[in-house]
Amino acid sequence: MAKYEGFAQIDVSLPGHQYPIIVCRNGLTESALLRKIVSSQQVLIVTNKTIAPLYLSSIENAFSDIQCDVVILLDGEEYKNQQSLDKIYAALITNRHHRDTTLIALGGGVIGDITGFAAATYQRGVGFVQIPTTLLAQIDASVGGKTAINHPQAKNMIGCFYQPQAVLIDLNTLTTLPDREFRAGLAEMIKYGLLVGGSFLDKLTVALQQGLNANSQSLPELIEDCCRIKVKFVESDEKEQDQRALLNLGHTFAHALETYTHYQQWLHGEAVAIGLYCAAKLSYEMGLIKSELVSQIEELLKYAGLPHKIPIGTQLDELRKLMGLDKKIKNNSLRFVVIKKPGDCYLATGVTEDCLHNTLITSVEGE
Amino acid sequence: MAKYEGFAQIDVSLPGHQYPIIVCRNGLTESALLRKIVSSQQVLIVTNKTIAPLYLSSIENAFSDIQCDVVILLDGEEYKNQQSLDKIYAALITNRHHRDTTLIALGGGVIGDITGFAAATYQRGVGFVQIPTTLLAQIDASVGGKTAINHPQAKNMIGCFYQPQAVLIDLNTLTTLPDREFRAGLAEMIKYGLLVGGSFLDKLTVALQQGLNANSQSLPELIEDCCRIKVKFVESDEKEQDQRALLNLGHTFAHALETYTHYQQWLHGEAVAIGLYCAAKLSYEMGLIKSELVSQIEELLKYAGLPHKIPIGTQLDELRKLMGLDKKIKNNSLRFVVIKKPGDCYLATGVTEDCLHNTLITSVEGE
Repeated sequence: MAKYEGFAQIDVSLPGHQYPIIVCRNGLTESALLRKIVSSQQVLIVTNKTIAPLYLSSIENAFSDIQCDVVILLDGEEYKNQQSLDKIYAALITNRHHRDTTLIALGGGVIGDITGFAAATYQRGVGFVQIPTTLLAQIDASVGGKTAINHPQAKNMIGCFYQPQAVLIDLNTLTTLPDREFRAGLAEMIKYGLLVGGSFLDKLTVALQQGLNANSQSLPELIEDCCRIKVKFVESDEKEQDQRALLNLGHTFAHALETYTHYQQWLHGEAVAIGLYCAAKLSYEMGLIKSELVSQIEELLKYAGLPHKIPIGTQLDELRKLMGLDKKIKNNSLRFVVIKKPGDCYLATGVTEDCLHNTLITSVEGE
Repeated sequence: MAKYEGFAQIDVSLPGHQYPIIVCRNGLTESALLRKIVSSQQVLIVTNKTIAPLYLSSIENAFSDIQCDVVILLDGEEYKNQQSLDKIYAALITNRHHRDTTLIALGGGVIGDITGFAAATYQRGVGFVQIPTTLLAQIDASVGGKTAINHPQAKNMIGCFYQPQAVLIDLNTLTTLPDREFRAGLAEMIKYGLLVGGSFLDKLTVALQQGLNANSQSLPELIEDCCRIKVKFVESDEKEQDQRALLNLGHTFAHALETYTHYQQWLHGEAVAIGLYCAAKLSYEMGLIKSELVSQIEELLKYAGLPHKIPIGTQLDELRKLMGLDKKIKNNSLRFVVIKKPGDCYLATGVTEDCLHNTLITSVEGE
């Protein structure tokens, strides 16, 4: 695999496909780097209205001598839908992009997921490069090849596995990320901490206690660590038959919360934060962990400035029903990622309705 | 790989995925065979209004003790679109199908392609079984894992590669196939004849001269041969980087003709028949073959009762423009599969506009 200049390069090695995750600073302004990654004669950049004014021109400059088209979507999870996908297809067809074109996703998880799905399905698959600009996308969404759009009735219901040819993480983009979005990304970082425990969790805990932000000295290494952790899970189980499902810690609750609030109330990472708390409570209800660990997780979420409880007034029975569309369901039964201890989580079947009911009730604000 | 009772079993072996093509008689009425192939606890059968009255109840019977839902689409290439796909997604979501469900495509190429795409993209991929009921689907569309829907502006523009877990070919279904559709399937058979030449082409020529129909004694072996030929191409190049593109002989012309007539005038196989004739004429224009081979190919198409010339009044410049969306385009240049001799075809770049122009003009009826 080619080596690129950067802070770090993580090589992802999957059957029949290898690609690099390049972590760097100022990568977006380096035309040579972009041109090394994208060798096609046609490019379509997909971004959104928030990111376009900040970084689009840098990318366009790098491709000024070849056909470079742009699709600018509205910003928000509610636009990760068929209509936005149709806009990308229309741009590709109208501008006669061929099978050897490259789609560049410039933005957060929504842009990455939808652009990846378009790349996977246009002419049965074209080139795809991820340039994630949010913390959440840099440590989670852009890594591992999951692509999707939401269906009105459930999140990420339509999609496929499709690996990019490269992921370019420019740490500088985090300096323009709103604080709320930065904190949302920390939820996935805490998730990794619970999944692997050990020195990573210790390092993360210290960083969160000190107040982690885009300028923190510890941030680059934490981002690199997170990418490496995710890559390990993905390499061991690309299609989520088994181990990779652990990355969904907290996500069964989170997706139901997002669908329940029509993606309006929380950023994905905020819903994951609440989901992590619920997963901790569920593990406690199942007798797997003591209340001290629940409190420790609650503390981490608080340090990160994240919500962690289900708001008062949420219809818990409705939330329970929405979990029925979770993608981890097997043989008609829900499966939850639960915690035995930091670094030791597993996919539990046979969680009783009573247990789940108690978890939801005791996870509501004020309880 | 498990062995099944049948006339023949062809094993498809791809990196990370093996599956059988089972050629048999009465397979649709054998519940035990169907249950051996489909082991999930949920099934969604996708078929159309023409096929449903003939074969749906047989399949439903086999799954009467588990959750078995049905989507019945309208019959025709014009329904291979996003709207039909949305109906399948809606049925899956409404009936709470999980990631371990199986989609069964019962019908021709349209049903197979659209059901395959739904299976590839629902929850990032669920089980998929092909039960092709047309000659064309049995020897071509159901084999090899190409799935797609049409975009209003171009055929098969949205899709992906997704292999089924089994293909069940029941020769009995051909007895209810309208004669016109049967003949359309012969176009793909003739395509294979040109691609491989030799004894297969000889055998096919004799069979066509004798008048090949659904009851011909030579048919089962020809179908099996075609499946084996296609499997070889697919195994050597699953994602169509190279050799597999040869299977598109005649298809650049055919797809443009289908788009030009909004899928209303010809069955896919009929458009392929005209496309094969155009490919022969192009090979002649390029000085690759003599006029005798063009005439021989014309004869084969006539024996099969297929159209082979472009109708008078067709806007050839419009047809040429529609080819600009062909999926074989590379570095902005069209590539055509051309014939050097039966059994020796290749993907030609640098076909001149003059050459293409002459090909189209001399392929029009009355020329």
